[in-house]
Parts: sequence; structure tokens; C-alpha cells
Amino acid sequence: MYSIILAGGSGTRLWPLSRAASPKFLHRLGGTDQSLLQATAARVAALSDPGRIYVVTGVAHVAAVARQLSHVPEANILVEPEPRDSLAAVALAAAVVAERDPGAVMAVYSADHLIGRQERFEELIGVAARAAEAGALVTVGIRPTRPETGFGYLHLAEETSPGVHRIAAFREKPDAETAAGYLATGEYLWNAGMFVFQAEAFLAELERQRPRLRAGIATIAAAWDGPEQETVFAATWPTLEKISVDYGVMEGAAAAGLVATVPADFPWSDIGDFHSLGESLDGDAAGNVVLADTGLATLRSVEDSVVVSTTGRVVAVVGLRDVVVVDTDDALLVCPRSRAHEVKQVVDVLKEQGFHKHV
Amino acid sequence: MYSIILAGGSGTRLWPLSRAASPKFLHRLGGTDQSLLQATAARVAALSDPGRIYVVTGVAHVAAVARQLSHVPEANILVEPEPRDSLAAVALAAAVVAERDPGAVMAVYSADHLIGRQERFEELIGVAARAAEAGALVTVGIRPTRPETGFGYLHLAEETSPGVHRIAAFREKPDAETAAGYLATGEYLWNAGMFVFQAEAFLAELERQRPRLRAGIATIAAAWDGPEQETVFAATWPTLEKISVDYGVMEGAAAAGLVATVPADFPWSDIGDFHSLGESLDGDAAGNVVLADTGLATLRSVEDSVVVSTTGRVVAVVGLRDVVVVDTDDALLVCPRSRAHEVKQVVDVLKEQGFHKHV
Repeated sequence: MYSIILAGGSGTRLWPLSRAASPKFLHRLGGTDQSLLQATAARVAALSDPGRIYVVTGVAHVAAVARQLSHVPEANILVEPEPRDSLAAVALAAAVVAERDPGAVMAVYSADHLIGRQERFEELIGVAARAAEAGALVTVGIRPTRPETGFGYLHLAEETSPGVHRIAAFREKPDAETAAGYLATGEYLWNAGMFVFQAEAFLAELERQRPRLRAGIATIAAAWDGPEQETVFAATWPTLEKISVDYGVMEGAAAAGLVATVPADFPWSDIGDFHSLGESLDGDAAGNVVLADTGLATLRSVEDSVVVSTTGRVVAVVGLRDVVVVDTDDALLVCPRSRAHEVKQVVDVLKEQGFHKHV
Repeated sequence: MYSIILAGGSGTRLWPLSRAASPKFLHRLGGTDQSLLQATAARVAALSDPGRIYVVTGVAHVAAVARQLSHVPEANILVEPEPRDSLAAVALAAAVVAERDPGAVMAVYSADHLIGRQERFEELIGVAARAAEAGALVTVGIRPTRPETGFGYLHLAEETSPGVHRIAAFREKPDAETAAGYLATGEYLWNAGMFVFQAEAFLAELERQRPRLRAGIATIAAAWDGPEQETVFAATWPTLEKISVDYGVMEGAAAAGLVATVPADFPWSDIGDFHSLGESLDGDAAGNVVLADTGLATLRSVEDSVVVSTTGRVVAVVGLRDVVVVDTDDALLVCPRSRAHEVKQVVDVLKEQGFHKHV
């Protein structure tokens, strides 16, 4: 099968580590030597040989992506002339894959998510692939572990084959009460933006729902690998509708009964902010998660905190609990974990004040 | 009158800003463009013309001192070959001053204290100078504003002339209960290490109590300004007893009835740690004290905190109260104000781990 890695988005809520010029997926946030992008590529290595791994990324980061994933063929790194949201990116990958291998099944992953339990991951993607071979557009949903209000949800319907369910509906991000209700019923999954389908089945549904976008992608695909590739790509891409895969195709496909889901119980995180990073990684005996390249972090009477440093400086934290300290070359963040999501507002303020290189 | 500024000590509890290689008195900690050393020199400008200002400092910092105090004559910057505590420093200055101007009155200040209400300061030093002219060794004590356990105290006896009291006794740093009692009686002052006396009166008392130290200083003074100054200084200085002015002379002088004190009510701080720095400076509307050279500190829902940055980085603090954040080129500190004194232990740990340049 083919694995498509979407390496886009800047991850503003992980500022100051992650920012437009240095997005989340390029950083070592998994507690290992691998960036999130590298970890994503490593995760699919047992499912796709390097020639079947594709990455879709932007002009700003393609060089870093190419270096981090040195085993992925250059021709498999698809470079968007500008960001057009996820539907255009997935459609491009589907068109390129379908051109090369009609009938191919492809799985789509975000480059900046953390996933645990590798064997279970491979097993469930296998289940999804079999459903995709039978014609379904499959979205891999995550069994919720908390009443999260930051994700969309999938409402499960009946099981149609072992481990595969029909989806009754996509749900927008809920309020806290609704999220608690979703969690209690056990009938809802987090929509994790992870898809498995036949490239041609996806393109057919794209044709049905978004014929103009499908036509634009067809124009680009027709010129692919030819002398006009760049010209056609650059001229056509900016005209494509800017919309997510979910809104642009999956919701309509679900209404038409074409979408299946595989409920997944492996640990999963989109590392939405530094609090979430702390939840996703194993802490030390005091519950602290420390990511410091050079190991100079000195914690004294500190508990349940997240300390990240990329500077090699001595970072001394004393007598605090549930805090986030992020130390980078040109910016420092200190906040409680409970307010980690507010860095988005800090970034907005910095943008207003003209600190563009810092955000 | 002569003003002697003691520019020694590293101020470990202000780590990471202040450290052996970059002591407290060289830093702009008064909320102005002046270092503490410069503020001290400026404070005495109305009392002593530049030719009557002396600085005693060590070899490690004399270059910085000379540059910061460009108006002080080079001959008035006395450079200790090695630190021998405050008695040797004060005795050296007294001997040099007495040689030049027998009968001179000199005031001794620490280079790293903050003092407010300039007019009141000048007025009370004037009161002390008149008592000194009458023969007393005067220590300027500070009216306590809290039950501080970090300072020694002076027990006041009767007023001997307007604004001048005899001292009944020197008291060591008290425990909390004792300190509260001191504060309640109104009979105790903080011993602030600020002295006013005739140079010759001090040297006479030194002769009585510490004849060997007095003899060593006399040897150095006899060679001063001669061809053997450096040789004699370097050979004799390391043999001098290492003891403070208080223990070495003032306590014994008080027992002999020679010490007077002027109770001072101007704002005073030795800036013992970053909490104390926050107490000493006016905060903004939210009670925050921010010392950031480049003004990039972004505080959001932060109260009663102390934020110091010398790096020019963006420093974002969100949703915290009563914290200390100190951002320097090679080290970062984050702690609650209530534990600011514990940085001393952090420094000890860093020393043990071999991070000598960081401390």
C-alpha cells in the first residue's frame, strides 16, 4: 500500500518551538531522536516500502523534509506552490498514485501526530486497507480517552465487518457538556484526519462532489513528469478550492453511505499544545516531561511540568507544578499547563507588534 | 567628606544574572540605565566630589568598574589582589585616605544596595558625619519594615544627640520569632553595612583590636604611591585576617562605647534575591517588575511577578502570579518568588556538576 504524509501547518500552539518558519513536524517532540515527520515515516515503514511513501509539503519546508527523509525518493516529495488546505494535497497525491498504480490503496497521515503501540497501529491500518479494497473510503477514528472539545467526532453506526463500522455522521467540535455525553455513550470517535482508500475511489467521489477541483487536479496530473509540469502546477494550483478533506469530501461521502471507520485504540495525540505534549509522553518520577537536547535542565521540587529547551542553556526551574517552560534561541514561554492553549493569543499579539521572525 | 564604595561579592542569590564573573553591582537592577555601582556613585555625588570617591574592588572586575565609573580618578580605584572580606578593604581605604587627608571623615557603602529618597539619604549621612566629627564610629542602621531573618540587627540605646543613638549591642541574624519581636519593640535596626567615621579614629580602633591587621595595612600604606607599592601590596595583603568590619571592629568598638548609630528611614534594599528586587522597585499596574533591555517581554494575566531579561529575546509569560523569570544568555531561571532564595542551592548543584562558567 501507499503511505501519504501531509507535512503542512505550523502548529502555532506549540510556539515558540513551532512557528511558520519551523513547523511542528520538523521538531523532535516524541522524546526520541526523530522529528515527528521522521517518526511518521518510520511508523509506516512496515506498510510501505520507501518508493511507496509520498510526502506533500510546501516550498518553505521541502528542503528540510527532503533532508530529514533521505530514504524517500525525490519524485515522491510533492511540493505545493502554496498551501490550499488538505483536500487539494490529498487529491494531488491520489492523482499521482493512481496514475502510477491504478487500483492502489493509499493511507493518509499527518506528519505531526504521535502514535503509540506500533503493532496495533499496523494491524488496524491493515483492517482499514481491507475495507478500502472493498471500495469504502475509510477514516481511522480514535477511541476518546477524555471529553475533548478541540476535535471533531465521528458518530459510529453498525459494524459492517470485523472492526469496521459505518459512520452515522460527522460532528463538529462539541462544547464540554456534549463532549462528556459523547464520551459516556461510547459511540463516538475522535476524527483524527487519518484516511485509507483506493486512490481511484477517492478521485471518483471527488469528481462527484467537487468536479472543478477534480478537473484542476486532472490538469496538473496530466502534465506531471512532462516538460510543462511546473508551469501547469503553478498556474492551476492557486485556483483550487481551499477546503479540508473532511468538509470537502468525507462528510458528503458519509451521507452517501460510502464512508467506513475503523475505531482505533492505540495511543494518539495531535500534540495540540505543550500540555498535550506532556500528556503524550512518559514523564520522570515526578511527572515531568523534559525535552532538552543538551541535558542541562535542573529541576528542583518541580512536578508534572513540561520543560523544552533547544538552546543548550542551563534551564533551572524551582518549586513549581504544572508549568510549561519552552526555551528557544529567540523566544521563551512560561505558563501553566492549563493555559498552554493561550500561546495562540501571544502569537497574535507578537504578529500585531511586528515580531514576524519570532512567530 | 570621602565616600568609599566596596565593590565586592558576587550575589549568588541573584543567579543567573549575577555570578562570580558578572557580580550584582555591575548590573542595571535599579530600574534605570545605571548599574547598582553607578547608582551608588551617583548617590554620593552631592556629598563627595569625584576626587574624594574611592572604590575598593577585585582584580576580576576592576576593568568593568573603571569603565562604569569613568569620572572616578584611577588612583582612587583600589584593587585587592584577592578578596579578604570587608575589614581589610575598609582599613586599606582608611589608610589611603588618612595618608592624604588626616582628620578626613569617610563614609563606607556597598556597591550593590538600592537606596531611595535621595534628600533624606544626604540629610542622614550629614547627621552621621557630624557624629563622626565628634569622634564616634557611626553605623547607619535601617528602620526595619518587616521581620527579616536575613540581616543582623542593631539594638538601639539612648539618643545622645538629635538623630544619633548609642548602640546597646549588635545582634546576629535572628529566627522568625525573634525578628518579629525586634520589629514590635521598635528598638532594633537592620545592620546595613553602611559606616561613617574619621579615617584615623577607625584606624586607632583597628590598632586597639586588631594590631596585626593594622600593622599589615600600615606596611601597605607606607609603600603606597612608591616604587614598591605592588610588591608590598601583593606580599602583605594575603596575610591579612579575613573578617568583616562588623565582627572585626564594630562589635568590639560598641562594647567600648565608641559606636553610634543613625536610624535611617529611607527605602533600602540589599537586593538579596529576585523576590527582594521585586519588593524594592515600583511595579506596573499588575504589580509586575520587568527589567528587559529590549522591551520584548509579553505578560498576559501575570501578577506580582519579577521578569528580568538581558538577551533581547521575546519573553512570554502567561497566567502566573508571584513568579520569577530570569533570562540570560546561557542560563534561565523560573521559580516562585517565595523560593527565590533557593537559587543558591541551584548554583551549588551546577558547581558540583562542573558548570563553572554558568555560576
